[in-house]
Order: sequence, then C-alpha cells, then structure tokens
Amino acid sequence: PSSYSITLIPGDGIGPEIISVAKDVLVLVGSLEGIKFEFQEVLMGGAALDATGVPLPDDTLSAAKQSHAVLLGAVGGYKWDKNEKHLKPETGLLQIRKELGVFANLRPATVYSPLVDASTLKREVAEGVDIMLIRELTGGIYFGEPRGFGTNENGEEIGFNTEIYATHEIDRIAHFAFKVAQKRCGKLCSVDKANVLEASMLWRRRFLAIAQEYPDVELSHMYVDNASMQLIRNPKQFDTMVTNNIFGDILSDEASMVTGSIGMLPSASLGASGPGLFEPIHGSAPDIAGQDKANPFATVLSAAMLLRYGLGEEKAAKRIENAVVDTLNRGFRTGDIYSAGTKLVGCKQLGEEILKSV
Amino acid sequence: PSSYSITLIPGDGIGPEIISVAKDVLVLVGSLEGIKFEFQEVLMGGAALDATGVPLPDDTLSAAKQSHAVLLGAVGGYKWDKNEKHLKPETGLLQIRKELGVFANLRPATVYSPLVDASTLKREVAEGVDIMLIRELTGGIYFGEPRGFGTNENGEEIGFNTEIYATHEIDRIAHFAFKVAQKRCGKLCSVDKANVLEASMLWRRRFLAIAQEYPDVELSHMYVDNASMQLIRNPKQFDTMVTNNIFGDILSDEASMVTGSIGMLPSASLGASGPGLFEPIHGSAPDIAGQDKANPFATVLSAAMLLRYGLGEEKAAKRIENAVVDTLNRGFRTGDIYSAGTKLVGCKQLGEEILKSV
Ligand SMILES: CC(C)[C@H](C(=O)O)[C@@H](O)C(=O)O
Ligand SMILES: CC(C)[C@H](C(=O)O)[C@@H](O)C(=O)O
Repeated sequence: PSSYSITLIPGDGIGPEIISVAKDVLVLVGSLEGIKFEFQEVLMGGAALDATGVPLPDDTLSAAKQSHAVLLGAVGGYKWDKNEKHLKPETGLLQIRKELGVFANLRPATVYSPLVDASTLKREVAEGVDIMLIRELTGGIYFGEPRGFGTNENGEEIGFNTEIYATHEIDRIAHFAFKVAQKRCGKLCSVDKANVLEASMLWRRRFLAIAQEYPDVELSHMYVDNASMQLIRNPKQFDTMVTNNIFGDILSDEASMVTGSIGMLPSASLGASGPGLFEPIHGSAPDIAGQDKANPFATVLSAAMLLRYGLGEEKAAKRIENAVVDTLNRGFRTGDIYSAGTKLVGCKQLGEEILKSV
Repeated sequence: PSSYSITLIPGDGIGPEIISVAKDVLVLVGSLEGIKFEFQEVLMGGAALDATGVPLPDDTLSAAKQSHAVLLGAVGGYKWDKNEKHLKPETGLLQIRKELGVFANLRPATVYSPLVDASTLKREVAEGVDIMLIRELTGGIYFGEPRGFGTNENGEEIGFNTEIYATHEIDRIAHFAFKVAQKRCGKLCSVDKANVLEASMLWRRRFLAIAQEYPDVELSHMYVDNASMQLIRNPKQFDTMVTNNIFGDILSDEASMVTGSIGMLPSASLGASGPGLFEPIHGSAPDIAGQDKANPFATVLSAAMLLRYGLGEEKAAKRIENAVVDTLNRGFRTGDIYSAGTKLVGCKQLGEEILKSV
C-alpha cells in the first residue's frame, strides 16, 4: 500500500476546525483505498507569530519540504492586522508559496446544482458554471524587485513595486495551463493587459509561441478589465483561464463569488517537483472561529485536490468529491450555504456526515 | 450668456455616431439654458493614425488644452490591434489623459430601474445600485518608470512595469474622493492591496492621514480581491469607492457590468485645473460601426457630466439626465438594452427622441 507524509497547517481562526475534518476524511478514504498517511501538524501565520515570533518558522518550512503534500487551513486575523509587513500572517503564506516553488495555482469555480441559488447571479447565468482558473503564484508584482519606499526628486515619499515576468516563468505556467486545458474542453483563455503593460505584452507573446505546441487547444486572449465584466455577463463562456499573480488574485475571487458559495471552493498550488500546497480559497473567518460554525467542504475538497494533483491518487480523490456531493444531496448544510428545507449542522457534524458518505 | 468651447473627438468605430447625437443634445439644452457652445472636431486614436501617423496629433492636444472641455466617443478597432505600442489607438487615450493631467476618473455605476432586468444579477441584488467609483488615472503602473523589455542575468527576456505612487498623487485623489463622498452619502471605501504591495501601503497610510480632515466621511478599506467579490455579493453596500489606476480599470468595468447596461454609463476625468475629458465607458464597438445600431445614451450622459463637472452648469446637466430617464420611460431602446414590450430604434432615432424629451 502507498504511504505518504502529509504536513497539516491548521493556521488561524477556523483553520483548526476545518483541518480536523479534512484529516478524518483523508484517514477514512485512505483506509478504504489502501493508502497510509502520516500526518505532521505545524504552525504558520498568526499562530506561529504568537508562538515563535515569525509567520513561517524554519521547522514548518522544512517539515513541508520533506513531506509529500501540504494541507493548509487558513491564516490571518484582526489581532495581527496592524503588524509590520514581515510580521503579518499573510507574509508566511507568501513565503511558503515561494519556498515550495508552487508557481501554478489551480482555482476551480464550480457551481454545485443544489447550491445554485446561493449565487447572486440569475439561475440561468450561474447554473453549470465550471471554470478552472490558473493563477501564476510565485512571480509578478507579488515578488518583483525593486520594491519598497523611498523619496523622489521632490523630496516626497514614494511607494513602489515591480510587475516583472521572465520568459521561463511565463513558459512554465503556459505549458501547465495548456495541459490542463487539454484535459478539459480544450479551450484556454489567457488574461492580460497587453494594451498597456510590457509585462503583459511578453506574456501574450510567449503564450502565442507556446500555443504552437498545443494545436488541440484553442487559445484566446482577453484584457483583464473585459474579463472582469465577462465573468459576470456570461461566466459559462469560460472553461480554462490563465493569468498572472495579481490579476489571478482578483479574478479568482470574483469567479468564486459567481458560484455564490466560496465555502465550497478548494485550491491547489503546484510546482515543477516537490510537495504541493492545498488550501480552501476562503479566509480564516476569525468572527466565527471556535464556534463550530465553519464550513469544512472547501478544505475537504482541497484534500481531494491533494490526492489528485499532489499524490496522483485519482480514485481516492473522486471518492471524496462524490462524498461531498452525496452529503449535499442528503441536505446537510453549514450556515453559510443553508437555505430553507435543508438541515443546518455545525462543522463537526457536517464532518461526520461526510464520513458517512465516503 | 455663458459661452464655452468644446473639443469633440469622435474617434473610431461607433464614435462618430454617438458624438453626433450628444452634440445635438448639447446644442438644444444650451439654447434652452442660455449657454452657447463652440465646437471643434479633431482626430484621435485609429482615425488619427490613418490620417497623420500618430494616435494623438499635436493639433488635437492643443485644441483640447485650449478648450473648456473635451467630449470623446471611443477609440480602437481590429485594424490597429497589432500595431506596436506607440502606434496603438489606446496610446493616444493614455497620452491625452496624462497631458491634460486628468488624475481623477469618475465612473458611476447606476442601475436605471426600467433596465434592472438587463443585469445578470438577481433583481433584488441589482435594484437601486448607485456606486460612484473614482479611479486614479494618471499614475501607478500605467505610467510608472522603469518599464519595458530587457534581459536578466540568465540571458532570458523579461518584461516589466513599475507600480509607483508619490504622496502628492495619493493626496490629491484622496481629497477629491473625500469631497465626492461628502456630497453623496458620506461613505468612502478605499480599495488597495496593502497586505502585499508597498505602493498600496503608502496609499492606505495617506488615506488614513487625510481622513482626519474629513470627520464627516466614514472611511473604510478593502483589499482588491475582496472588493471584486463584494461587488457581486452585495453591490448596494458601496456608495463612493476610490482606487488606483489598474485596480480601478478592473473594478469599474466589473461594477458597470453589475448594472447590466454598460451602454448607459458615462465617465468624467478631471484635473486640478484645465479642461476635463468626458467619455462613455464602453468601447468603439467596431462590429456595429456605421450601422446606426449604437446606443448614444452613455455619450449623452457624458455630456451631462461635462456640463456638471467640466463647466459647473448643474441645471443643464440635470436637464439632460432627466431627458434620458424620460426617453427610457417612454420605452425607446437600442438593441443592447432592448427587451420585449419596448420600442427598438436606431442610434439616430433615439437621438431624436432624447431631443423631444429635453
Ligand atoms: C492573503 C493574501 C496574501 C493572498 C494573496 O493575495 O495571494 C490571498 O488573497 C490569496 O488569494 O490567497
Ligand atoms: C483602452 C485602455 C487603455 C483603457 C484603460 O485601461 O485605461 C480602458 O480600458 C479604460 O478603462 O478606459
């Protein structure tokens, strides 16, 4: 039987509650599919700041690097909001992404039919939306140098960042995106701002060049401002989308809200080799932390992505996804996705229902 | 009687058709309100490229600078899409913004009740949306230096841009935004990415400082990824929003699509002094150019903004806005906003109906 070491990072807020559910689901699915997991729980974000003074302790990073995959709850909270940049929980997240080299961030935005009415979009617009948005995660303006504060020639303070992409950074995310599109409907939409930004012009030029190697994929280009409109006007026009780090941050959140239930949406961050990082796209929700109200579905679905993309265990991944759909069909809901006629349960009980459905 | 010189830039695609309607409306409203206009029509964008080889001829710029206000149709088209950057129609637009120093771009996203069903959002979510989004228009990554292409230490090609804000650039847009918020509901939401970008951290710091001078305005901050979600989840939470150039490009288009009818939305770009630039937020729509199908409402409403913000002629502005509502109420529609039970007309006829409503 296969055996894998998994780093668990509960993080802050609702993180511990949702990670605990996902861990139970992994254990059960593993036992049914002949997969053994060894878990190691480590600190990151606010929890790590409180315990060690830094948002990403060395121990956490080396545990993560030595494991087969990393499952993260969420980081952040009001308590640390005013911290200086290098002492922010979010900085830990950016550091681990960079250190693990997970340049490709997969963010599915899928509408689950029983939850279609949760979308603020009209039923006929939202129904059937199934977008795979790929965000470049370790480059661009998030990491570009030079950056910082300074003084200009008039003696005024300035703040600056650098949006920068090198050919190999664009090429590897392009190959990744074309391959994902090949396995889906063969349609890839690359989003940029090539009518204004040089970084986007190079991006577009490289995508056009690499498209030659994927004649079975239909590549289109869209400006980011237009994409932000089209996601609302007609989200079903999109299958696979790919874009840079900052545009991906904005558009993936927009796409997730199109589904109406961000408590359902997982993500996977992958590199060329080494462990991937898997996390729900929602945040740490400090306002409901510790109240057994959190929705664990997105983290459980992140565990499914971990199995599929991180470990290549497709059957076990599918088993989790089916269990989620079954639990939804049996009517169980946390508060964020509750509607009249369904059964409102807490995080723990929802976890138990998912286990029954596995 | 007041007398003003107005620079008209029809531009490309549907530009000439919609500008011609807006001009007629200005003339009629002027004659009723005792305002005289002197119009000068000049070239920009693709039309200028074809005639003179540059997207913003010197004559156009000096005409604009010498006038009291500039009314623009739209620029761009497939024909010039592959042009090098300095020969793109859009470059003319960026140049005139910079040259006129119009740093504050006002983009209202208003849902007109008779058109609420044009939104893909549910009626109860879209109804009553009335957002004023203020975009910084002459700074940030659009104009920041250094920018361009180069080679990195591995000999690879790179593309790069600089997101940069100086204190005075932030301060002036902040004062502008606080003043707009004061005249509206006294709520201002500043959108940034201060958890990652230094340019945003300075932005937020300056907004907090300047807020002291506007105790009657309630300032809030939102990260750009969250804002892109909240605009869909509950657009009515927003009154006045303010953000940088690139985030404003993305969010204002998203907000406009929330209304469902971007053919209705005008914009104003204003500087500290000198003429403002007024234009519909939609593009040049080359696919329907010259077919008398364009919707002139957004350009007519831009003429109203020109009267209000450019010339201080509030009464004449209101007169145009009332005429637009009246024309809508009388059931006249172009194709883009047509629905069963209303009267489908072309651009020209809609113009005549607006004149009747004035
Ligand atoms: C917390 C923040 C730094 C992060 C990002 O901007 O990447 C988050 O918004 C995300 O999308 O994962
Ligand atoms: C045409 C383009 C350069 C322009 C911009 O990005 O500013 C447009 O999208 C806009 O919003 O006016």
